[in-house]
Formats: sequence, structure tokens, C-alpha cells
Amino acid sequence: MEKKLIGVDLGGTTAKIAILTTDGTIEEKWSVETDISDEGSHIVRNIGDSINQKLKDLQLDHDAFYGIGMGTPGTINYETGTVKGAYNLNWAKEQNVATDLKKITSLDVHLDNDANIAAVGERWQGAGEGSANVFFVTLGTGVGGGIFAEGKILHGAKGAAGEIGHITVDTSKEAYDCTCGKKGCLETIASATGIVRVAKDLAKSFEADSKLKGSIQQETEDITSKLIFDLAAEDDALAQKVVDHICFYLGLACSHIGNMLNPEKIIIGGGVSAAGDALLTPIQDYFEGMVFPAVRESTSISIATLGNDAGVLGAAWLALPSE
Amino acid sequence: MEKKLIGVDLGGTTAKIAILTTDGTIEEKWSVETDISDEGSHIVRNIGDSINQKLKDLQLDHDAFYGIGMGTPGTINYETGTVKGAYNLNWAKEQNVATDLKKITSLDVHLDNDANIAAVGERWQGAGEGSANVFFVTLGTGVGGGIFAEGKILHGAKGAAGEIGHITVDTSKEAYDCTCGKKGCLETIASATGIVRVAKDLAKSFEADSKLKGSIQQETEDITSKLIFDLAAEDDALAQKVVDHICFYLGLACSHIGNMLNPEKIIIGGGVSAAGDALLTPIQDYFEGMVFPAVRESTSISIATLGNDAGVLGAAWLALPSE
Repeated sequence: MEKKLIGVDLGGTTAKIAILTTDGTIEEKWSVETDISDEGSHIVRNIGDSINQKLKDLQLDHDAFYGIGMGTPGTINYETGTVKGAYNLNWAKEQNVATDLKKITSLDVHLDNDANIAAVGERWQGAGEGSANVFFVTLGTGVGGGIFAEGKILHGAKGAAGEIGHITVDTSKEAYDCTCGKKGCLETIASATGIVRVAKDLAKSFEADSKLKGSIQQETEDITSKLIFDLAAEDDALAQKVVDHICFYLGLACSHIGNMLNPEKIIIGGGVSAAGDALLTPIQDYFEGMVFPAVRESTSISIATLGNDAGVLGAAWLALPSE
Repeated sequence: MEKKLIGVDLGGTTAKIAILTTDGTIEEKWSVETDISDEGSHIVRNIGDSINQKLKDLQLDHDAFYGIGMGTPGTINYETGTVKGAYNLNWAKEQNVATDLKKITSLDVHLDNDANIAAVGERWQGAGEGSANVFFVTLGTGVGGGIFAEGKILHGAKGAAGEIGHITVDTSKEAYDCTCGKKGCLETIASATGIVRVAKDLAKSFEADSKLKGSIQQETEDITSKLIFDLAAEDDALAQKVVDHICFYLGLACSHIGNMLNPEKIIIGGGVSAAGDALLTPIQDYFEGMVFPAVRESTSISIATLGNDAGVLGAAWLALPSE
């Protein structure tokens, strides 16, 4: 029998866990609550115990697995398999994640960060279609990204490769301040919170009729990026202006990815990507105007297709034996 | 005796050829004129004959070599070892470069493009100091680049990875048209010709005293990027304004490289890089203001150190057996 893979996608509220075949079929999927008490010291133990229990329930031997792949927040030391600075897990200090999980499960453990495993998952089983080069952009509370190039995840000197959220897209004096300490980052405009900020700003000087403008001024409704895309679909003039504004900057950022890396696919995921074509089409239009011909012909942009499964799939891929 | 390497750096006027040890020491170096007559059909033959003759003169057997690495202009098909669209060689049609050169020399032939081999050369023996991740930017008649990441040259979907010259750095209506068909490319500002264009433009509205302004208005001198850096060093106010202007855009482009790829080193080469610290220091200042903290601490910028040898060194590296 061909060996299987275990994928773990660790987040601040739950860890999603799955058992997969080597061709990427999810056979079992469950989750464990992330217990961040006692400086997050129970997290790895709970995941390991849950995997052991599931294998017992399914009467599967540990020998039936190549190993565990796991995506985690924080900064990973790829040599030692340790993680630090994962503040949403209360992991301020260095954690021996790989060693501890291996000790509990007797399985090899491979780590990478959460944006990178989503990139790999989409590349393996989703919108990336097995392309050699994929750049994944995630638009959520923040803006992040991961790069898969020539068969490898790119990490960079300090694990910061793929951090598209902090490229400077607005160099004007009016650029917004970012939480990273600098100004004009893509994240200040194109994250879920950035989109709302742009809407409130553009509303101030917007003269025409707009339901969105009314909602913002009268504070009648909670303004979210979803509401803005919904109103844009109903031809609200301000909402359309906001969508056009953020898609210009996303198109610019994607053009930098295209001109610099020429991946087969740029994949846009995260909560904001639920807007689908209303987001994708204007990004593509701006992108095509800002890339040179060879890139226009060979790099395309699409919306992620795997949703929440991207994480466990990409994590499991880490445990695949090298070809 | 340890086997040796042959590196070939093919350009529009000459092909530079070298014999190197596997630790990157150049033992012999010579060049052959590039004969572009008859649709460039003599080029590969001349290089092959010259290598054969040199090996005969040095009484070196073909068995003493791992193979030939060669950098070439044009678009390379890495599967077939063919090259097309190298217009400065009169190679409009597809050329069987690898097969033909192997037939003449009985040595294995590995191809890559000229910007990529310069990147690899600097990474191997120059300013890259063996870093795992290096982005090489060449500032010459045009602006090009090459990427070395996690032990590999990145090519992208259509060989266009590294084309930093065509990222859109100026999104204003006044952005210059680029030869690639779009507007606002880095190359329109930071190439040798771009720098002169910026100087002529800024001169129009420049009010203060400036020798550069006089030279431009009276057409007394040939305006070159070298002259502009020389005058900036002599405190010419317009020349300093031009240097600051182009370094802002180069700093912005380098910040995109840093935030997206987080290489250990960004290396600036090509003719314009002869300006040294006068170019490097203002680029570093703008760069540091536009990258987020993890990149500021781990990605640095420096000037290339190998000059014309980067090409043959990087080419020879292609012929190194994999570890």
C-alpha cells in the first residue's frame, strides 16, 4: 500500500489536520482547538495526541505515513525546526515544534509558514495546476504571499520572501502609515481593513449619489470590504470608485510580480478574494497595461480555488518524499 | 587531476572565452570576434574552432573538462538548447547552439542568458559571496537583471524572470514611453540613456546655476551618464538633482526586490555602476526607507566587483557538475 501524508494547518483558533494520499486526495479531515494558555505550551502536545488518537481509531500504523507537514505562523528556523514570534499562539519564545511533534508521533515533521503552504497547496491541487512557478497573494486582515519557483518554496535570507503586503505602492506624501513602521504598503490599501479605510477617505470628497457614502456618513451600517463589493455590484458609484482604486494598486503589485518573476500563475486568495471576478477583472486590466509583452503572454492571474483546504494540502505536500 | 571548466560570454562584438578551475580561478582568457554576417551562421563555428585550437595549443585533452557553459543574448529554450530572437547577432531564426557547439568541441554545453550568468558569476566569485539568494541588476544601455534563489537560476514561465528594467516605477501621466511598448519602466529612467533623458528634462525648469544645464542648453558637450555623475561629484546642483531622481527610482525598484524576495544581496553592475558610492549610497538610503524591518536587517545592496569577468565566470559555473 502506498504511504500517506498528514497535513497540519496551525492557526490562532484551530489547527486543521488531514490525512491525504500522495496524489492529494483528502481522506480524513478534522480539527483541534488551539489552546494558547500557558504560553501556548499545550499546542504541539494537543496536535500530536490528536494525530495519535486518529491513527488508533482508523487502525492505521505509523509506518503507513511518510510524515507530517505543518504550516505555522511566526518565524521558522528551517535548520532547527523551531518557531518563534508567533504572537497569536503566545509563542514569543523559541519553540521546538518539529522535535516535539516528532517525539509525540514518531513521524518526521516538516515545517513552513502559513502563507507558503497555502501557495504550495494551490499550486499542487488548486488554481496553480502544477505550474513550475506560482506566486500566491492572500488578501485578508493583512496582505501576505508565498512563492513557489522551479520546484521550491522561496524563503529568502530571513524568511521574508513573498511579503508582497509590504511593497511600497504609494510613494506620495499622503500615503497611509503601515503597522510595519513604513508608509504606502500594499496592505494599507488592499487588506480588508485597508479597503474600508480607502472607502472612508474617498467618501469625504465624493459628490455624486451613493448609498455607500450615506452609510459611511450616517454610520448606519458596519462598513466591510464585502459590503463595498456588494454595493459596487449594485452600481453604487462610490463603491465602484473604491474597487477601481484598490484594483489599480493590486494590478501594480501583480505587475511587479510578473515583470520580476514571470510565474505561470499569480493566484489571489484570502477572504477578500470571495469577491471573485469583480476583483479579478479590474486587476487583470491594470496588470496587462503594466507588464511587458513576454509577461503579458505567459503570466496569468486567477482566484484561488481551494478555500480553507489550501493549508492542509500544502502542508501535506511538505512531507512528500523528494522525487 | 581535477577537471576544468570552459566559460563563454557571447556578445554582439566579441565572445569572451575562459578556462577555469572548479574553484573559479581563471587560468586562460581570450576572445573571438563575433562575425554576424550570413545571419550569424559563423558565430558558433568560430567559438568552437577557437576552443579546439586553444586546447591543442595548451596540450589539454577534451577529457580534462566537465564541459562548456555559455551566456547568450536572445530567448533560450532550455529543453532543446536553442536560441532565437538574438537580433544583435542576426539570430532571428532558431539556432541549435548547444547541439552545434557540442558537435564541434565534443564537450557538453549548458546555456543561459547573459544577465543570468552575470548574476551567477557575481554570486559565485564576486559581490554575492556565496549567498543562497542574489538579485543582480545591470545598468547599461538598458536595465536588466538575473535572479539566483535557493541554489538555482530562476527563469520563469517564458525566461523573463529578472526583468527588473520593465517594472513600472512611474505611474504618472508624464511617465516616459519605453521601447517595450509600455510606459514608466525603470529602464526609461535608470539606464545610461534614461539618465541623460532625465537630465535634459529636469534642466528645462532648473533655475539655479549649473554647468550641466549650460552644457545641455548650449550643446557644447556630449551629455553622458558618466558626465552627470562627474559633475554631481563637483557639487553641480542640477547633476545632483538628476542623481537623486534616478536613485529614488532605483531605491524603489530595489525595495520591491527586497520586500518580495528578501535576497541576502542585491548587486548592481553594468557600465553605470562605475559611479560607485555616488550611486550606491543614495540608493541604499531610499531602499531602507521603503523596506520593512526584517528585510532592512537581512538584505543589503552592493556594487558588482567582477567587471567584465562576471560573464565567463557565471557561464563556467553552469558547467559545474551538480553537488
